[in-house]
Amino acid sequence: MLGGTGRQGRGLAARFAAAGLRVIIGSRDPGRARDALAGLSTAGAQPLEITAHATAVSQAEVTILSVPFESVESLLHELSPAFRAGVLVIDVTVPVMFDRGKMAMIDVPEGSATEHVRARLPPAVRLAGAFKTIPAHLLGAGSEPLDCDEFVCGDSDEARQEASALVRVLPGVRPIDVGPLSRARSIEHLTALAIAINRRHKIHDARFRVIGLR
Amino acid sequence: MLGGTGRQGRGLAARFAAAGLRVIIGSRDPGRARDALAGLSTAGAQPLEITAHATAVSQAEVTILSVPFESVESLLHELSPAFRAGVLVIDVTVPVMFDRGKMAMIDVPEGSATEHVRARLPPAVRLAGAFKTIPAHLLGAGSEPLDCDEFVCGDSDEARQEASALVRVLPGVRPIDVGPLSRARSIEHLTALAIAINRRHKIHDARFRVIGLR
Repeated sequence: MLGGTGRQGRGLAARFAAAGLRVIIGSRDPGRARDALAGLSTAGAQPLEITAHATAVSQAEVTILSVPFESVESLLHELSPAFRAGVLVIDVTVPVMFDRGKMAMIDVPEGSATEHVRARLPPAVRLAGAFKTIPAHLLGAGSEPLDCDEFVCGDSDEARQEASALVRVLPGVRPIDVGPLSRARSIEHLTALAIAINRRHKIHDARFRVIGLR
Repeated sequence: MLGGTGRQGRGLAARFAAAGLRVIIGSRDPGRARDALAGLSTAGAQPLEITAHATAVSQAEVTILSVPFESVESLLHELSPAFRAGVLVIDVTVPVMFDRGKMAMIDVPEGSATEHVRARLPPAVRLAGAFKTIPAHLLGAGSEPLDCDEFVCGDSDEARQEASALVRVLPGVRPIDVGPLSRARSIEHLTALAIAINRRHKIHDARFRVIGLR
């Protein structure tokens, strides 16, 4: 988990650990990350392991990229050599910005945050986009039921299937395969819509279910 | 209703008429539109009125714009003088294209189809975007329950409220106010996502519910 001290990353880490997965948090400053995560409840599961970015990446089968969108470029520039061939990266970032209280999507030359990530990963590393619409607030709310669908795109069937399997680890969450990475921008717009709904309706946990799928 | 012979327009017209609303279809060729709509079931309601574009617009309190996105510019250029001040236009168009079987969003210089419409309407005409994600196939399926949320944006609280009231006319559909017209692009991406889900999962009626709204 890169970005494990942010709200989304911390929530996902706690939920994965509670589900019995081994979770390694990669941090620029492992000491500070340890302090930041000290109070995190993982429901009696194995404690989170906290280590340096490159160490985490070099050990991981799946790396979840949950840093602010603006940090992706420099982080991947630094970490690219650390990824083993064939591993899966799951991009969770959402390119939104807040300017004097107004939320807007960031224009991304590659089309989407996930395609921005693709352009900065070694070709032998596989990539999926997922966990972009699950509310951070809800993830962090201990054992609150999640009750939503998560949209998964990826650069191969296998990448989407592996990411979907990880989505299913979270109770009450159903993965929805939406196809290639070129669909990532639509998923990111869905997050923007959820944020807009949260703000307008003074709630915290707007999320989505697809109707019509058997 | 402009574009009442297309799948989305036809389905909306039938559902509104079945709910007891007076529906006027504006057409470039009313004779042909009459033939195209002859078999449409409106469940015993008043028959649809079919007339020329400008006549329909000049009579309507609410005009639903349900033509192909590519036709909006020339149609509104022609019809702009026909709108009375203060009426509401609801934009239903979705800027997607299919190129050799692949679906993609059309880039719109104004940001979204709805903002493209805004730029081509007289300032005294109010505008909302809605009914963009309700599946045309399901709308056309007689009395099948719709069971979904519809996302509404608009250039004023009143425009959103009036469009939301029209959403509520459809049984089983809940309007979700997502704010100003600048949110329209996110709604249009949601339609693209529904189309992608339909194609990938070989279904016809993918649609959305928001979870977390009381």
